Amino acid sequence: MTTAYRALNDGTLPGVLSALPDVRARLGGAPESWTVQEVGDGNLNLVFIIKGPAGAVVAKQALPYVRLVGDSWPLPLDRSYYEHMALSEQARHAPGLVPKIHHFDRGLALIVMEYLSPHIIMRKGLIRGTEYPLFAGHIAEFMAQTLFNTSALALPAAEHKQRIGAFAGNTELCKITEDLVFTDPYRIAKLNRWTTPYLDDIAAEFRRDEPLKIKVQERKLQFLTSAEAMIHGDLHTGSIMLTPQDTRIIDPEFAFVGPMGFDIGAVIGNLLIAYYAQTGHEERIGSRNAYRHWILLQTEKVWRVFTKRFLELWDASRTGDAYMPELFTGPEGAAAFAAEKQRFMRKLLTDSISFAGIKMIRRILGLAHTEDLESIKDPPLRAKCERQALTLARRLILDAERFSGMNEVTHAARAVLGSR
Amino acid sequence: MTTAYRALNDGTLPGVLSALPDVRARLGGAPESWTVQEVGDGNLNLVFIIKGPAGAVVAKQALPYVRLVGDSWPLPLDRSYYEHMALSEQARHAPGLVPKIHHFDRGLALIVMEYLSPHIIMRKGLIRGTEYPLFAGHIAEFMAQTLFNTSALALPAAEHKQRIGAFAGNTELCKITEDLVFTDPYRIAKLNRWTTPYLDDIAAEFRRDEPLKIKVQERKLQFLTSAEAMIHGDLHTGSIMLTPQDTRIIDPEFAFVGPMGFDIGAVIGNLLIAYYAQTGHEERIGSRNAYRHWILLQTEKVWRVFTKRFLELWDASRTGDAYMPELFTGPEGAAAFAAEKQRFMRKLLTDSISFAGIKMIRRILGLAHTEDLESIKDPPLRAKCERQALTLARRLILDAERFSGMNEVTHAARAVLGSR
Repeated sequence: MTTAYRALNDGTLPGVLSALPDVRARLGGAPESWTVQEVGDGNLNLVFIIKGPAGAVVAKQALPYVRLVGDSWPLPLDRSYYEHMALSEQARHAPGLVPKIHHFDRGLALIVMEYLSPHIIMRKGLIRGTEYPLFAGHIAEFMAQTLFNTSALALPAAEHKQRIGAFAGNTELCKITEDLVFTDPYRIAKLNRWTTPYLDDIAAEFRRDEPLKIKVQERKLQFLTSAEAMIHGDLHTGSIMLTPQDTRIIDPEFAFVGPMGFDIGAVIGNLLIAYYAQTGHEERIGSRNAYRHWILLQTEKVWRVFTKRFLELWDASRTGDAYMPELFTGPEGAAAFAAEKQRFMRKLLTDSISFAGIKMIRRILGLAHTEDLESIKDPPLRAKCERQALTLARRLILDAERFSGMNEVTHAARAVLGSR
Repeated sequence: MTTAYRALNDGTLPGVLSALPDVRARLGGAPESWTVQEVGDGNLNLVFIIKGPAGAVVAKQALPYVRLVGDSWPLPLDRSYYEHMALSEQARHAPGLVPKIHHFDRGLALIVMEYLSPHIIMRKGLIRGTEYPLFAGHIAEFMAQTLFNTSALALPAAEHKQRIGAFAGNTELCKITEDLVFTDPYRIAKLNRWTTPYLDDIAAEFRRDEPLKIKVQERKLQFLTSAEAMIHGDLHTGSIMLTPQDTRIIDPEFAFVGPMGFDIGAVIGNLLIAYYAQTGHEERIGSRNAYRHWILLQTEKVWRVFTKRFLELWDASRTGDAYMPELFTGPEGAAAFAAEKQRFMRKLLTDSISFAGIKMIRRILGLAHTEDLESIKDPPLRAKCERQALTLARRLILDAERFSGMNEVTHAARAVLGSR
């Protein structure tokens, strides 16, 4: 039995939740005593925090249109179904790194989940200059577990194809990525915006940059056709809530079976945006130097720990249909397989670096920007940070194959900052 | 309403067909006057030719197990559903190059289709030394039309993903390919067979050849994860029926959205098998020299015409979400896109050459062999042909990236024959 959809509000939500014994017990007291606060600052959904005498929960409801744009841009409610499916899958592989699910109602497109406190959106912490010593290890673990365990390296082909089919209907969310990430920043598009007039020149340059556009379109084709693993699909620092001790990855409504490097690139690209944004946030010139350094160390650590964990998982669970163990026995087989894993990781590094660059550009020349840069009030200063980010991003895309490690990426990032 | 499944025979089939007005009219006369002949020489299905006073039809029915092996190897009847879906799609893009469908019954796993006469299975023609002047152009057209028009180059992403989902359930047929093509020939497997003892040494060598096995496993991963276009999935010369004037591609039950190069490689690999088999069929040494030459010319022509037609279709229908035209305008955009198309075709050539080699090996060291070689009665002579084919195949896989054109492949093929 599915519930008929209606957008909920602080008046109607308690009634819905009070019918769920588990949620009701978690909140405690009478529904009339609950407080409801709408806190959605994302682009797509309603997000409520409901607090009762005994505890709190979060209720996330999809709207039938893009919240950022309005009802002129309809969007299917079933993204909530895909989000719930992805969240459940992620919880299996990376328990403790996603919010707990208390309830899902497909008809209402409503997910009731754990209220995370005192977690904040990571992006806000990066703006404040807060260090999160466990973040890199946590996000690396999340990516290694979810990407490896939903890949053909871990799964029999039939299960892999079943998941490909299960997410194949999440087309409208994928289309947002296809349009806003891979296409619009490279053409005149109504929804594009940037810090004008300061970036008018570089925006025009990018629209004329044939080698750059070709590389981005190759990556778009990869996004359209590569079914490597179930990816989060929107793994920026606004999809991460954390404290210095705890990290949770939220909002996987863009999930589908796609290229692994897209998730890794999202994390790396958003760290690099935060790196360049520091100039706009430092109290005096140089006061964020140590923090800048910390961000780049995390960028390297994310890749380092991811690689380590991914390879450990691969060694421990050669259960998929690709590279079956019995094909590579004895010392020679082991050596050949070891070399192949290195080749695999190098290609994934290349993919990730290129996607990182693409994700950076869309946040500066496309529709949806990030608070890291948007919160820099002085337009010339913001444009300066953005131009540096764009300069590195372009290089990451054009030269992705040439970087042999993430340390070379951070080196390039420093060089661009130094040449400001 | 679906019919309950039961395997049909020459006694029960006329009753089923007589209930179909269109088929009944096509055959003419009373069902009692129809003749039924079971002619299935494939590995999986029942195939009947039904003839009446006015005409004839073919009825293909899936069996719930692999015919070649027996009921110890069950296989889902729904492959008939996927075959019908693929055949319908192919008919839209390449009308005249597939048999017409008269009726489909999902419950019976039965496709009633055009009776092709005087067409023969191409493999038999290749054994006889028959030239088919239109074949290369026809198969190239078929592949260009079906691969391009079901790719993200031609289709909006949502439609591409819809088709990925529609075929995602055809896992058991894909698994046959994954096991028999990409895995078994490289390990001790009960179902393997080869011309023993003559090929025992090379079979053992291949099982120990780490670089070869690594390359093949890379291709298996590509087969598992690359959703480029709807492929036929089993496009060998036994899936082609033809006359010198007419060509029809049959049996697409292995269809799914996979790597384009797998289809092209199947055609190329099977032509190269036919090339090496000529030594076993020539009346006296050298009497098939002209025919050998013809086969290699066709191998080159298939790729040449395919490339030409694929690029023409791409130029004419830039309707997909990848490489949208408005991103590449003016002379510089056009030049960049032209170069990118060349890069795309070069990668597709590499893929095709590697898959060709893989398809050759499975036909000599794996379960299912081809009549080209099996019909050579003298084991040492057969083994000699097979060893040549294996030698070239290994090189195609290991050096796929180094071939810059199909003429270099045929050159290598000749060199292996010359060194016999």
